[in-house]
Amino acid sequence: MSAYRKLEARFARQADIEGAVAVLHWDHQVMMPPGGTEARAEQLATLESLAHEILTAPETGALLDEVAAEDLAPWPAANVREMRRAHTHATAVSADLVAALARASARAEPVWREARAQADFGLLRPALDEVVQLTREEAAAKAEVLGLEPYDALLDGYEPGTTTADVDRLFDPLAETLPGLLERVLAHQGDVPRPELEIAPEVQQALGQRLMAALGFDFDHGRLDVSLHPFCGGVPDDIRMTARWDAADPASGLMAILHETGHALYNANLPKPWRRQPVGEPRSTAVHESQSLLVEMQICRSPAFFRYLAPLLAEANGGPGPSPDALYRNAIRVGRGFIRVDADEVTYPLHVILRYRLEKALVRGALKVADLPTAWNEGMRTLLGVVPPDDRLGCLQDIHWPVGAIGYFPCYTLGAIIAAQLREAAAEALPDLDASLEAGDFRPLTGWAREKIHAQGCFLETPELILAATGRPLSLTPFLTHLDRRYLA
Amino acid sequence: MSAYRKLEARFARQADIEGAVAVLHWDHQVMMPPGGTEARAEQLATLESLAHEILTAPETGALLDEVAAEDLAPWPAANVREMRRAHTHATAVSADLVAALARASARAEPVWREARAQADFGLLRPALDEVVQLTREEAAAKAEVLGLEPYDALLDGYEPGTTTADVDRLFDPLAETLPGLLERVLAHQGDVPRPELEIAPEVQQALGQRLMAALGFDFDHGRLDVSLHPFCGGVPDDIRMTARWDAADPASGLMAILHETGHALYNANLPKPWRRQPVGEPRSTAVHESQSLLVEMQICRSPAFFRYLAPLLAEANGGPGPSPDALYRNAIRVGRGFIRVDADEVTYPLHVILRYRLEKALVRGALKVADLPTAWNEGMRTLLGVVPPDDRLGCLQDIHWPVGAIGYFPCYTLGAIIAAQLREAAAEALPDLDASLEAGDFRPLTGWAREKIHAQGCFLETPELILAATGRPLSLTPFLTHLDRRYLA
Repeated sequence: MSAYRKLEARFARQADIEGAVAVLHWDHQVMMPPGGTEARAEQLATLESLAHEILTAPETGALLDEVAAEDLAPWPAANVREMRRAHTHATAVSADLVAALARASARAEPVWREARAQADFGLLRPALDEVVQLTREEAAAKAEVLGLEPYDALLDGYEPGTTTADVDRLFDPLAETLPGLLERVLAHQGDVPRPELEIAPEVQQALGQRLMAALGFDFDHGRLDVSLHPFCGGVPDDIRMTARWDAADPASGLMAILHETGHALYNANLPKPWRRQPVGEPRSTAVHESQSLLVEMQICRSPAFFRYLAPLLAEANGGPGPSPDALYRNAIRVGRGFIRVDADEVTYPLHVILRYRLEKALVRGALKVADLPTAWNEGMRTLLGVVPPDDRLGCLQDIHWPVGAIGYFPCYTLGAIIAAQLREAAAEALPDLDASLEAGDFRPLTGWAREKIHAQGCFLETPELILAATGRPLSLTPFLTHLDRRYLA
Repeated sequence: MSAYRKLEARFARQADIEGAVAVLHWDHQVMMPPGGTEARAEQLATLESLAHEILTAPETGALLDEVAAEDLAPWPAANVREMRRAHTHATAVSADLVAALARASARAEPVWREARAQADFGLLRPALDEVVQLTREEAAAKAEVLGLEPYDALLDGYEPGTTTADVDRLFDPLAETLPGLLERVLAHQGDVPRPELEIAPEVQQALGQRLMAALGFDFDHGRLDVSLHPFCGGVPDDIRMTARWDAADPASGLMAILHETGHALYNANLPKPWRRQPVGEPRSTAVHESQSLLVEMQICRSPAFFRYLAPLLAEANGGPGPSPDALYRNAIRVGRGFIRVDADEVTYPLHVILRYRLEKALVRGALKVADLPTAWNEGMRTLLGVVPPDDRLGCLQDIHWPVGAIGYFPCYTLGAIIAAQLREAAAEALPDLDASLEAGDFRPLTGWAREKIHAQGCFLETPELILAATGRPLSLTPFLTHLDRRYLA
């Protein structure tokens, strides 16, 4: 067996373990009785460590050295590149540090929940201090191996090949532009009444499934259940999506469904011959987010989509419902809020830029954990023009830092920027796009996304993928143009 | 770290993998969309082989040799005994043979489904031939290492320490007695009308959950769902039970619930300090079956239980329901049937004895697969006095042999014999047992079973466990006495 084939076999095993982990995570959120927590934590810890052992095994490294001499076709060569990347990241950090980080995050998470509930940052500080300190060590270790700055080494784990310089090139002009744009949008939008709708959860669920099916979700290869926080999990051929339904606010649950369906379509349409191989995985966190935002924000928060949705909502409402225009205006309401996950398309990037700047400073050591609340509030004032009344609505709102996910936040807004550029290119390629959306026919758009993004897996690096899909390097312009058109027209 | 502690850590990992496998099996039967089959098969194959690798690793063997010199307390010593047993079984068979058997069974299972549907044994014969041939090799390999006869080496995998001689000592007099007893029971019972009841599945499900809770099933540590075949899966602190509901036949679904709850209570009450260790596992297949039959057959197919159940059924029926006596007589109806899983308490052992004798002959080479249908029908005539009209109702009915589970069948009837002896001892210890059952108070019985059986895990070997629980070695007498009292009184 060639070194390449041996590597394929090793990574297929690793993928099987990760696939099992994905289903067990779904089960944890959706099905597991509360008393199962401890046993499940042990199962997941063991499976994660087995997957990590396969990745970091000396044999894996030796095979990666050996395969360099083999003459590989383009896809296997890309597969090896992704294997090497995963191996490098996993071996850059000592097993002791990995374990210490896992323990520190596991300790910090419940403390964070308590601190947030009590709006008491002092409660979280020691635990967060430890996580940040260990993450700095992780960043330093990866930086040395990858030849990157420490923060960039963390970012590389979510968004391979992207550096602070790349992000700043997009985020700095965005931070310049958005506060002024926000002023103008608020002045322009006036009062937007909330549409009155009351739809029973099971009717919403049926409507959600109808939208999923229309978008191309295949219920032979996935299911929709209910969980506290909607997510898209499972594996490409067995996707586990979840939703949450509020009888008095059907629109928000349905928009979440559209968002998660964007993630689901990406996973389902990954290249079939490369299942269980690194090159068959989604390109990156930002590209994944671009697919959910392409569906939810670019395509479905549009007048055409609400002309399709309004009669379906009215039918589900059991009588006449809000007009397409009322639904659309409600879906694009903008406001200065404290909470990132509740933010609209205009203010969301400002929440992200705040976190990106703070986490860079934390990793560099330029910001102490103790000074986080002050820095947070100051950033909110500068970027959004509001200051949270307490840390629950401020620096305690997100789970990311307490669990050691530093370097993740920028991906949300990178995804939004990518999504806008993809939408622009799709509209050029599909002149009847709006008409098809209004008719509830999403196949032209999803077919385009499948060919250009989903089926590419990790064959190309992100910049080449975007260049190939849109004919242009990634640029902020389509996103700003999109905001102008949608919110100031 | 001592060799013992290292072994504990290895076996805990192995248990975590098996626990994950158990949840994934449940998911497969209850939740998974059909298109997930292939990915799930890969995940399970990888996890099973990882668990097998931990068990058979040379380091595991070396630690088992090393630990022999350590001075261990009784429970750790029993834990090591069970570790060694598992290691010996797993290493007795070559990895190639294990893989060949897995492949042959995987190939045979769908062929068996097709052959059974078409009542065409010829379809299955080549695939079954291969499985039986490989199982003979497995038996020979284990026999050599364990110092047992080949069939006994297979039996030892399900019922450790039990040999053909032990089984024959119980089954031979049973095979002598039951055909005559069956004649007398049929003459005695007369016509038993089927109670007329029609209860919606969701009402049955609620009643099933009420019975489970009354028996002590803790829904903080488990759930009840619906599947094609009821089973009890998951792990001790997260038990996944399933049921199947037929609106026109509530009694059969509820009796299945009681059976599975017997299994569930055993798993839930296994010794808590020994979770994820071999000594904390259920004693054996037969002891497990004894716990389901203790609840279903010994306790719940009783006049006292139906005096408790009748008003609950009437309430669920939304009007007056059948009398306790009508329900009881229906629950103990006896008849000569072709199908084991539909058999009653009197004829079930005859179905088992038939299979036990045939599978012994198959392993010995005294019976050819090609001659199975003739031998089956001949055995049915001798033991049950009926001959199936085709092989679908004959030797094609069970999945066990096609998937290589040879040596399993005797455990069903060993379980029934053990259950009768446990019931006898429990009744001696609990003079108010019937009164408590009639009041729907199962705690005296389940508390007794927890102390005597469940909480013992694998601390004792089966004969010592039964001796300690009942004060007597295992004997056929309580089972025969029970049948006489219930069916001829």
